[in-house]
Amino acid sequence: MIIVTKPDATEEQIQHILDRIKEWGLKAEVSRGAVRTVIGVIGPEDQIRERPIAAIPGVESATPVLKPYKLVAREFRGGNVGEVKVGDVAIGGREVVLMSGPCSVENREQLVGIAKAIKSAGAKILRGGAFKPRTSPYAFQGLGEEGLRLLAEARAATGLPVITEIMDTKHLEIIEQYADCLQVGARNMQNFSLLKEVGRSKLPVMLKRGMSATIKDLLMSAEYILNEGNFNVLLCERGIRTFETYTRNTLDLNAVPVLKAETHLPIVVDPTHGIGLRQHVLPMALAAVAAGADAIMVEVHNSPEFAKSDGEQALLPDEYADLVQRTRKVAEAVGRSLGK
Amino acid sequence: MIIVTKPDATEEQIQHILDRIKEWGLKAEVSRGAVRTVIGVIGPEDQIRERPIAAIPGVESATPVLKPYKLVAREFRGGNVGEVKVGDVAIGGREVVLMSGPCSVENREQLVGIAKAIKSAGAKILRGGAFKPRTSPYAFQGLGEEGLRLLAEARAATGLPVITEIMDTKHLEIIEQYADCLQVGARNMQNFSLLKEVGRSKLPVMLKRGMSATIKDLLMSAEYILNEGNFNVLLCERGIRTFETYTRNTLDLNAVPVLKAETHLPIVVDPTHGIGLRQHVLPMALAAVAAGADAIMVEVHNSPEFAKSDGEQALLPDEYADLVQRTRKVAEAVGRSLGK
Amino acid sequence: MIIVTKPDATEEQIQHILDRIKEWGLKAEVSRGAVRTVIGVIGPEDQIRERPIAAIPGVESATPVLKPYKLVAREFRGGNVGEVKVGDVAIGGREVVLMSGPCSVENREQLVGIAKAIKSAGAKILRGGAFKPRTSPYAFQGLGEEGLRLLAEARAATGLPVITEIMDTKHLEIIEQYADCLQVGARNMQNFSLLKEVGRSKLPVMLKRGMSATIKDLLMSAEYILNEGNFNVLLCERGIRTFETYTRNTLDLNAVPVLKAETHLPIVVDPTHGIGLRQHVLPMALAAVAAGADAIMVEVHNSPEFAKSDGEQALLPDEYADLVQRTRKVAEAVGRSLGK
Amino acid sequence: MIIVTKPDATEEQIQHILDRIKEWGLKAEVSRGAVRTVIGVIGPEDQIRERPIAAIPGVESATPVLKPYKLVAREFRGGNVGEVKVGDVAIGGREVVLMSGPCSVENREQLVGIAKAIKSAGAKILRGGAFKPRTSPYAFQGLGEEGLRLLAEARAATGLPVITEIMDTKHLEIIEQYADCLQVGARNMQNFSLLKEVGRSKLPVMLKRGMSATIKDLLMSAEYILNEGNFNVLLCERGIRTFETYTRNTLDLNAVPVLKAETHLPIVVDPTHGIGLRQHVLPMALAAVAAGADAIMVEVHNSPEFAKSDGEQALLPDEYADLVQRTRKVAEAVGRSLGK
Repeated sequence: MIIVTKPDATEEQIQHILDRIKEWGLKAEVSRGAVRTVIGVIGPEDQIRERPIAAIPGVESATPVLKPYKLVAREFRGGNVGEVKVGDVAIGGREVVLMSGPCSVENREQLVGIAKAIKSAGAKILRGGAFKPRTSPYAFQGLGEEGLRLLAEARAATGLPVITEIMDTKHLEIIEQYADCLQVGARNMQNFSLLKEVGRSKLPVMLKRGMSATIKDLLMSAEYILNEGNFNVLLCERGIRTFETYTRNTLDLNAVPVLKAETHLPIVVDPTHGIGLRQHVLPMALAAVAAGADAIMVEVHNSPEFAKSDGEQALLPDEYADLVQRTRKVAEAVGRSLGK
Repeated sequence: MIIVTKPDATEEQIQHILDRIKEWGLKAEVSRGAVRTVIGVIGPEDQIRERPIAAIPGVESATPVLKPYKLVAREFRGGNVGEVKVGDVAIGGREVVLMSGPCSVENREQLVGIAKAIKSAGAKILRGGAFKPRTSPYAFQGLGEEGLRLLAEARAATGLPVITEIMDTKHLEIIEQYADCLQVGARNMQNFSLLKEVGRSKLPVMLKRGMSATIKDLLMSAEYILNEGNFNVLLCERGIRTFETYTRNTLDLNAVPVLKAETHLPIVVDPTHGIGLRQHVLPMALAAVAAGADAIMVEVHNSPEFAKSDGEQALLPDEYADLVQRTRKVAEAVGRSLGK
Repeated sequence: MIIVTKPDATEEQIQHILDRIKEWGLKAEVSRGAVRTVIGVIGPEDQIRERPIAAIPGVESATPVLKPYKLVAREFRGGNVGEVKVGDVAIGGREVVLMSGPCSVENREQLVGIAKAIKSAGAKILRGGAFKPRTSPYAFQGLGEEGLRLLAEARAATGLPVITEIMDTKHLEIIEQYADCLQVGARNMQNFSLLKEVGRSKLPVMLKRGMSATIKDLLMSAEYILNEGNFNVLLCERGIRTFETYTRNTLDLNAVPVLKAETHLPIVVDPTHGIGLRQHVLPMALAAVAAGADAIMVEVHNSPEFAKSDGEQALLPDEYADLVQRTRKVAEAVGRSLGK
Repeated sequence: MIIVTKPDATEEQIQHILDRIKEWGLKAEVSRGAVRTVIGVIGPEDQIRERPIAAIPGVESATPVLKPYKLVAREFRGGNVGEVKVGDVAIGGREVVLMSGPCSVENREQLVGIAKAIKSAGAKILRGGAFKPRTSPYAFQGLGEEGLRLLAEARAATGLPVITEIMDTKHLEIIEQYADCLQVGARNMQNFSLLKEVGRSKLPVMLKRGMSATIKDLLMSAEYILNEGNFNVLLCERGIRTFETYTRNTLDLNAVPVLKAETHLPIVVDPTHGIGLRQHVLPMALAAVAAGADAIMVEVHNSPEFAKSDGEQALLPDEYADLVQRTRKVAEAVGRSLGK
């Protein structure tokens, strides 16, 4: 922690700051400049990070030196990327993993049909929403447990492990019965009760970045999950909210290399929500792989104009198969593969 | 709903759009321009708002004409502002209501001391967090039920009704035993499970605007609560996230007149979180009243440098008393009052 | 300047950093932590601010301690606010100054009519655009020199000094012949050639904040003008660009108290462009005064639906007279006045 | 144009709207709903786009149907991408063009050395700033004409055509004597005087997207240049300003496919400024090519820690050579090439 005093800080104020540092059991190194005094606080920064140092009279700013996250930090695993397994599919290795499926589970025919189509195209994991977070209370809210049952059926029919969203701590037990991976949505990225709860689950968790979450916020939310003992966490970039209105969100691919440098957790990119326009999902998927993503999640629907949610951005199965072929080439160009 | 076709939409595509509109039991009026065709859809828009019309081949855009919210709309109450009662304090009338208290409930002396101080300064409602949403899992997470008990004690000692945050659907029952008003925080503004749950409570709810929530998003989240039967909802502007880094957030006072035009729900402004800098809370509180806020929430702490959360932005009791005096003058200048 | 090294910085890298600091003629104080080394650089920070210290191998971050602006800083005038005179109207004192007029100068009847109306309502300065920055090349681009002549006529008819926008260094001479104050628009806030040119003018300059300019950026742009010798600069908050789409811009009133703390330059607020919706200009003007603005600029048009630019946000003369009356009360409530 | 009336619009107001439309020589089609009336305006929309229709009493909203740009629209060239030539290097064809060079021209040895290095690595165009837009007036402002002369020398030494920034209409003549392509920087994207001036130049122009410019704003600014007769325009995505602070800017690769769909102008991506962190330029360059960029601009410096501007984000020549090799593979994976 580096404390900088105000220009008009008095000698008494500076002494009071030094006394507080001593109280905390830490050591201070003082550099007096012409205008301001700089105090370096030596010792375990965690003890003081949450203290309101800027509220001490005479303090102008207090800047941490160390990062606020520990368990998610790349150094925690000695600089290596960890692998997270969803069913028996490993994410975070040389292979770029494809996840796909409809936005919402709607009925058996829809789901099993799409699951078979994406599997034959090359997808390794099936996604589908049973509990749906919708901006409007009047929109389709998902099939609930019935949707979970259909996901398990689609898994039985295809062998694809299943990821689905959890919206409420009360649903953990029932979702754990059916799914292979929990998804925490962007709107719940800072629902800390939910983060703690999924941190106690045996299932892996895919945590989506909130619409106005900084990269640091995302890592701090992941830290909540790891801190409860669950280290099987995937981070998902899915677009942030900016001033641009042409696209639904602004897919922030800058987050991919930054996250890879900061954390050992594998990175998923969701170009479907990220750009939100069906005709532009393909180039963003290719760009995500080129930027270093470990997995790509793309929504597919067999009949977008009848979809109960997000039909505007879903690809048709044929378009998806084409995307997979092109993604394969880019993956190979950056030294990775798409598996069989 | 107004549908605009792509320049190259075929006659078959246009006919297919018209067929779909007919299927929905609605009426279409078609205007053919030189380049694009415009189709006005006449009839109850709610039936089609959630349909993926932009996914129909040949459609370039589909723009709703009516607003997506009903119960929160100002027209729903015939253009009048509703009053919401917290304990016996009415919010939404001529009187501007002052809410105050510490960020977190820390202990009896702290809470009761602050409660007495703010009451004597003019505050009408006591705030204090028992369950705390914190970015870091290593930060103080609140006293939980013990904090609720202390809030009830402070109410007994001062007569001030109490507002506190709910973070988890599982906590509703216990909070209802102690509090007079539920607060849903910015990070949970789109936690739809929580919104539905507080929508079934007997207590009023103060819903804080999410950091990247548009005004429309905020109203849609409130609609969730009203749709469950709870019409006692306050909306709180508390700062949005922008590119500016000097201030903690950007308090968006533009939202005050816009919300007053759009909804009958009373508007609270929280300048403390909004600007996040203790020395600038006062002018933003005055500006909020001038802009038309129905209530102002300001954090106060008796010893900010020892606060367990947000000490950097809390006012001292004396500073708060000064703020109340100045706020009173501005309230009167805009034709309102601060009560006794 | 505080330099923090990377965790894996070698002894040679640290020594190289210290050698560079010595080359610059500055002094280093080194604090070695368990993981990172912190180096405080003592001496005149200006010499090193622009050096690419973060490009030195082994450096993780380099954080300035002092502010990057000098001439605009409040300390430069010993903590006092300066007064800037436009014609004989002083801005920055106890009186809140009202500026008003149409967006564009359109013709003599329009301009003189509006000028008389706003003067009788209480305005002290007339605004009007002769050179207009328009997003579209097909939109009205202003009357040019003819517009300047009409502004001078309106000044002769009313006695109001005149402010108008400069868009090109080539126009300085001609505008200086007619106007009393130069306006640099939001889109040119970082047109550094223009800033230097107006810095050499005898006229005062009102510098509008760019749509994505931080408060620091705004101050640095003002520093360009003062650095050329022109200290008569007004800063104008006119709305920033955020994700919110209901309002045209997000008027950032937080900037008012922050700027007042940072600089001696007077602060103007433009609620018309800031919120961009005619029906909400009034409450934002009141809020701006409550927040501490030194002047308020509001657009008025005698026939908005026929205006050649920005008719959607202009007030009618009667609405403006009402705004002035209400503004007066708020100004008095915060210890200021509106003059006669 | 589609006009929607307010719920309480009177019959007189609606008639007045219809009268105005008739005055403009256009045709109205009226659909009366239960609450609002929708009026479709048929005819050449350009005539009414700039009229303040929302200022007509009774109007709630007025939404254009057609796009506001014509010359830059993809349809203007029958759906084809145009090629723009810088010297004899064509941009916009199958080949992805590499531009590179230092941020600022500093001296002969630096510039010629870098030019030779990037040429041998595979770059086709040399960049370098002679007039530098700097946030601080105290930062290095560029060598001016001396810098232009050095650029011409580097061209003579390597055969690479040269692009350099223009900041002031007064400098056009001198820059035209030395350069092969003009760059309009992000901070001048809406400096409309400058846009008109470069629109009259014989040289091609690379227009960088402003930090808070929407894609539509960028296209409208390009329209200014084409409207003056200069159709040789390149659009450059270089990062937008968002709430994220880890990266210097947020490189918005979403803009690449969107711009390719909207315009015939070739698209350049500048990952150096876009992410602003040297260690992450490579993955963003690869992603840009995968997303469909026609050219990539990357800054290179032979000694970043001594650079006079932006040393923190410049690559070393060796790092650049590696980037070119990797970029080549991704270009081929998406069906393009990097030339010889």
